[in-house]
Amino acid sequence: MSRDQINVGIIGFGTVGMGAVELLETNADWIAQRVGSRVVVKTIVDLDWKRERRYTVRPEQQSTKINDVLDDPEIDIVIEAMGGTHPAHRVVADALKRRKSVVTPNKELIAKHGAELLNLASEAKVDLMFEGAVGGGIPIIRPMKESLAGDRIQRIVGIVNGTTNYILTAMSHEGLDFSAVLKDAQVQGYAEADPTADVEGYDAMYKIAILAAIAFGSHIDLNSIYREGITRISAADIEYAHQLGYEVKLLAVAARHHDALDLRVHPTFVPVDHPLAAVNGVFNAIFVQSDPVGDLMFFGRGAGSGPTGSAVVGDVIDCARNINLGASARVPCRCYLNLPIQPISEVQTRYYLRTVVKDQIGVIGKIATILGDHQVSLVSIFQPHLEENTVGEGLAEIVWITHQVQEAKIQAALQALDKLDEVIEVANLVRVEGK
Amino acid sequence: MSRDQINVGIIGFGTVGMGAVELLETNADWIAQRVGSRVVVKTIVDLDWKRERRYTVRPEQQSTKINDVLDDPEIDIVIEAMGGTHPAHRVVADALKRRKSVVTPNKELIAKHGAELLNLASEAKVDLMFEGAVGGGIPIIRPMKESLAGDRIQRIVGIVNGTTNYILTAMSHEGLDFSAVLKDAQVQGYAEADPTADVEGYDAMYKIAILAAIAFGSHIDLNSIYREGITRISAADIEYAHQLGYEVKLLAVAARHHDALDLRVHPTFVPVDHPLAAVNGVFNAIFVQSDPVGDLMFFGRGAGSGPTGSAVVGDVIDCARNINLGASARVPCRCYLNLPIQPISEVQTRYYLRTVVKDQIGVIGKIATILGDHQVSLVSIFQPHLEENTVGEGLAEIVWITHQVQEAKIQAALQALDKLDEVIEVANLVRVEGK
Repeated sequence: MSRDQINVGIIGFGTVGMGAVELLETNADWIAQRVGSRVVVKTIVDLDWKRERRYTVRPEQQSTKINDVLDDPEIDIVIEAMGGTHPAHRVVADALKRRKSVVTPNKELIAKHGAELLNLASEAKVDLMFEGAVGGGIPIIRPMKESLAGDRIQRIVGIVNGTTNYILTAMSHEGLDFSAVLKDAQVQGYAEADPTADVEGYDAMYKIAILAAIAFGSHIDLNSIYREGITRISAADIEYAHQLGYEVKLLAVAARHHDALDLRVHPTFVPVDHPLAAVNGVFNAIFVQSDPVGDLMFFGRGAGSGPTGSAVVGDVIDCARNINLGASARVPCRCYLNLPIQPISEVQTRYYLRTVVKDQIGVIGKIATILGDHQVSLVSIFQPHLEENTVGEGLAEIVWITHQVQEAKIQAALQALDKLDEVIEVANLVRVEGK
Repeated sequence: MSRDQINVGIIGFGTVGMGAVELLETNADWIAQRVGSRVVVKTIVDLDWKRERRYTVRPEQQSTKINDVLDDPEIDIVIEAMGGTHPAHRVVADALKRRKSVVTPNKELIAKHGAELLNLASEAKVDLMFEGAVGGGIPIIRPMKESLAGDRIQRIVGIVNGTTNYILTAMSHEGLDFSAVLKDAQVQGYAEADPTADVEGYDAMYKIAILAAIAFGSHIDLNSIYREGITRISAADIEYAHQLGYEVKLLAVAARHHDALDLRVHPTFVPVDHPLAAVNGVFNAIFVQSDPVGDLMFFGRGAGSGPTGSAVVGDVIDCARNINLGASARVPCRCYLNLPIQPISEVQTRYYLRTVVKDQIGVIGKIATILGDHQVSLVSIFQPHLEENTVGEGLAEIVWITHQVQEAKIQAALQALDKLDEVIEVANLVRVEGK
């Protein structure tokens, strides 16, 4: 019993909101065929209607008042495209309480308040969908909630932030330092004026928290997720990574070890033959290890008007189909568990360690002995060949790659190294993926 | 209003059926949480219950009669795991008519009879789902039908047959000829005793027909799909591909050009830096170009008990959720169109052409002139360096790479070359992807 028309209200007419409206209106006939009802953009709320935009909408669609959407009983589906949590949190909660289905690509909102909002949706028997919150246009939320519903997901490793991947790719291809590339990315619109959320890993943290909640059916405490950005990665680190057969990527990791979760975001050395090493520029990719399906990878554009608009409209169509069938909230929140997150000190990985030392005979032996005393076992030691000595007169760099070791042990070793007269600086410590 | 229990009947207890049963029973609690009902394997039909199996089921689940499933009013969902179309076609039709939802990973059945069966499902208001029919465990059908429902898909290029990809990968890595690798693949269980369906491209053809029907919303006439297998690819072709910067892959292609479809399955030279070139062994990958989402790629295991079992169980869970909500058939067949498929003679691609010629001065000029006369423009001409002359005394091989040209023109050129005294043989003609 399909309705003739399903009305959508949109709050926020920036990149994402505009992408969604443009797609809903351009492909309206096609979408009507697939839903069985016309899906109509009735009202769009934005504070600034003077700004020139690539896509223009009719005057009767334009509003500056959120309540023009929330209070309108004819609006069935609300797209939240404001970003941030204030006032998005209140607005989404209010829309759900008024029995409107909500679509949002807002990762911060879902990571922080998803459980509460999904419960509201469940009580109101409406949908809350957020495919665009992770991986932009890449279908990942729906495959994980539906296609892999019978699987046991073991591990997710993703490149989920386009800005940092753009920066790291440019650093890798052009040999430039972080700050130079960041400036260029800001000019080109790939990085925000305040880049903190991206380069410090907050954005990736929200996304991996959302994926982990779905994959492991557990509430996720954001404060327990280890998070490290890419600001300390230098051109030298990337050059040495290449010499050792790696690319440097900001990875978001979520794994289940028995009854605890390993959840972290940090720059990582990824072997060049790993599928994630070849994911360049603003592309995102999410690698999933699951039982019994095995390895899966999902690849595509992680941000932008078109990709995120596509994800939002896919969700709107899903909501509309559910409205027509009276089947809203058909895939409810199942985050029943409260699995603890391992402290980073207990996590085991391999490490890349870059030290600046006095260029003296015997220094490698002294450092290696201290590492060994702390049960840090070495895979390789490497003194880079440099055209000119950039670290200082009488000084040299030494690069160390370790076997798997607990974070607590390597941190203790670093403290001991710090006391060694020959060690000027531990210039960087980066985790290493792979065997 | 969830039921306490939803009952599943399974017809066929081979690799796929067993994978599905094992997963449904092993993860029964987890699945019950996600569905809101226990999903119980009530009856399994197979002719042979004496054969030893990796996973054993209780005697009361075992049956040898298909009607024990079809006639049982307590069975809500039927998994068809027989393969082929006889009697699978009749069995699935009967199950749907009796208002049972059906899950099948049977690509031949869906490619040949999908439209009819989806109509039956729609009339009976039950689901027919077939995620496992393409890409094994890779979620691709559901993302295309739901996540990309608002998009306009332009092109799909996939490695969708694990057997041929295993063979081509082994040929590429080990320099062996097709027949040697095929025998090894048969011994190892990666190829069937009768390998025709895989190596001649039928399996890939069924899969691309299913994807095209969903992507373009059109009925697909299987007889109009150009299909060429991998049996003519030699160790020499692969060696020359490497020298030119390509890997050889069996690609299934579906693209929309205005109001016609370009649908074909054939071995293809893929540039080494294309994401599909790195998809090795039994892995599958499907590359989708769509507006506005851009490029997407889905990668994973394309066959086997675990991956296909995972896809089947994902569908069973989806069916079960719909049963609980009275929302079956929520994503109906929308194959309204009857887009024509371009004859292969009209398709434009680039070509690799391997000729065996008399080793005489002037022969390259003569061939190039004939190609030019037929509007075949050349990118490169290449005389491979061989340790020993394997083509015969006084003979030489010449490899030609063309620009984009219509198939009809290159075929006319080949006929003209055939009449040239200096051309002993056109040893192979393979299409080339990329710019």
